[in-house]
Amino acid sequence: MAGIEFLKGHGTLNDFVLLPDPAGSLELTPRRVAALCDRQRGLGADGVLRVVRSAALDADSAAEWFMDYRNADGSIAEMCGNGVRVFARYLVESGLEAGPEFAVGSRAGDRPVRVHDDLSVTVGMGRPTVTGTSVAVVDGRQVSGVAVDVGNPHLVSVLDDDVRALDLREPPRYDSEVFPEGVNIEFVNLLGPELLRMRVHERGVGETRACGTGTVAAVAATLHLRGDDSGESAVEIPGGRVAVTVGSDGGATLTGPAVFVARGELEGVWWDSLT
Amino acid sequence: MAGIEFLKGHGTLNDFVLLPDPAGSLELTPRRVAALCDRQRGLGADGVLRVVRSAALDADSAAEWFMDYRNADGSIAEMCGNGVRVFARYLVESGLEAGPEFAVGSRAGDRPVRVHDDLSVTVGMGRPTVTGTSVAVVDGRQVSGVAVDVGNPHLVSVLDDDVRALDLREPPRYDSEVFPEGVNIEFVNLLGPELLRMRVHERGVGETRACGTGTVAAVAATLHLRGDDSGESAVEIPGGRVAVTVGSDGGATLTGPAVFVARGELEGVWWDSLT
Repeated sequence: MAGIEFLKGHGTLNDFVLLPDPAGSLELTPRRVAALCDRQRGLGADGVLRVVRSAALDADSAAEWFMDYRNADGSIAEMCGNGVRVFARYLVESGLEAGPEFAVGSRAGDRPVRVHDDLSVTVGMGRPTVTGTSVAVVDGRQVSGVAVDVGNPHLVSVLDDDVRALDLREPPRYDSEVFPEGVNIEFVNLLGPELLRMRVHERGVGETRACGTGTVAAVAATLHLRGDDSGESAVEIPGGRVAVTVGSDGGATLTGPAVFVARGELEGVWWDSLT
Repeated sequence: MAGIEFLKGHGTLNDFVLLPDPAGSLELTPRRVAALCDRQRGLGADGVLRVVRSAALDADSAAEWFMDYRNADGSIAEMCGNGVRVFARYLVESGLEAGPEFAVGSRAGDRPVRVHDDLSVTVGMGRPTVTGTSVAVVDGRQVSGVAVDVGNPHLVSVLDDDVRALDLREPPRYDSEVFPEGVNIEFVNLLGPELLRMRVHERGVGETRACGTGTVAAVAATLHLRGDDSGESAVEIPGGRVAVTVGSDGGATLTGPAVFVARGELEGVWWDSLT
């Protein structure tokens, strides 16, 4: 079999192998995804983004192109806020979408995107909702936070001392009556009226260098704390910098970079050996 | 600038980005090597193998092709027994060497190689020398071992119980009077007259899935323990299986797989941003 086309890239250091497959003809088995994402055995990535026509998958989507996202272990995933930027940039660069605004299909629904002239990408993130307050225990101390729902649950804690010094190797403890299915926890410093620094502990994963919904939750929480319904802020995360807006209608957007590092073909002999 | 050609592959899960650069014209700065080997920011690898003519580097080598090996942190390295297999396979597949036998230049001297029909590769590893015995403390117990010099120092301990159950997260302790510059420590099970299982703790690194000189040391030590000067054995390591021979002249060879996963071009914009 001939080589399989691929691209490798990242969004704020959340990295992906992108597989263009318009007709949905690739046999993308869990074993192949896991081998491809294995950092020594394959190319290595946090996940695979298959680029496929919604029609070819019979997907429930009005978007022409569907982001078939897979986790590194081969399992199917709904959505990835960093991956969708990389996906959208690819569609425009390859001419599959004229741009700059279009929708990307996903298992979590269609996402509106805009690819900017500098190739950064803005993604519609839905309406974050502040649901209350709670507490967490991290690095030997109790902190309070604002609970925010962004489709998934978050607890945002604004701290006075530098979040870069926090020890996040042990998972923070939280109130399991408030968050029965676990919670992503953000630790935030206010660096200016429109600039936050954030670290995040993702449920089931540990600390990550970028969490798109977490940055939206962080901005929504800090707007709430100062009594604003809408506004915008840049967010410094370990993987880079993104910008979040919350509009007067309550809808949020996330803008960030999408970077391509390499493109080429997977070795056919190797790919075929993985069936 | 146009894209930079690359291949990604591994030898027993020790993985590399290979950069064909016959004329030595790539500006391969430490920063570029480190970015390329960064597993999220770049392609990700344990090291970079630049394929360059010895003449272009003015290298002290009689071999036509020189393996300019760099560690993942960007520093210059002398030699890599797994990398040289990947390097040699590339030379034959690309037609740069007619094969099957030739020499590969390196900072540790020229290495004789043979690329087999199944694309596994045999590499000459010099003469391992048994230098004595010593002890180590691992996983809460003291074990004895055979000291072997393979250009670098090794201590090989043959155990009765399954080495797969050993806890190697903590570095084993060793006699620093015998090994003032540290030592690579191999733990070995005899599975048959010509089959070993091995795990290895590399000095300064920790447990690795493959250590070429370690497998040579393990076979030399087990031959020594049964009173043989020469012989051969397969070695099961976490990264796969290799074969070691020690000839009647005392010279050792290591045979193992070389796998290519992908090839293509690094993005010129990305590469140029790293100068």
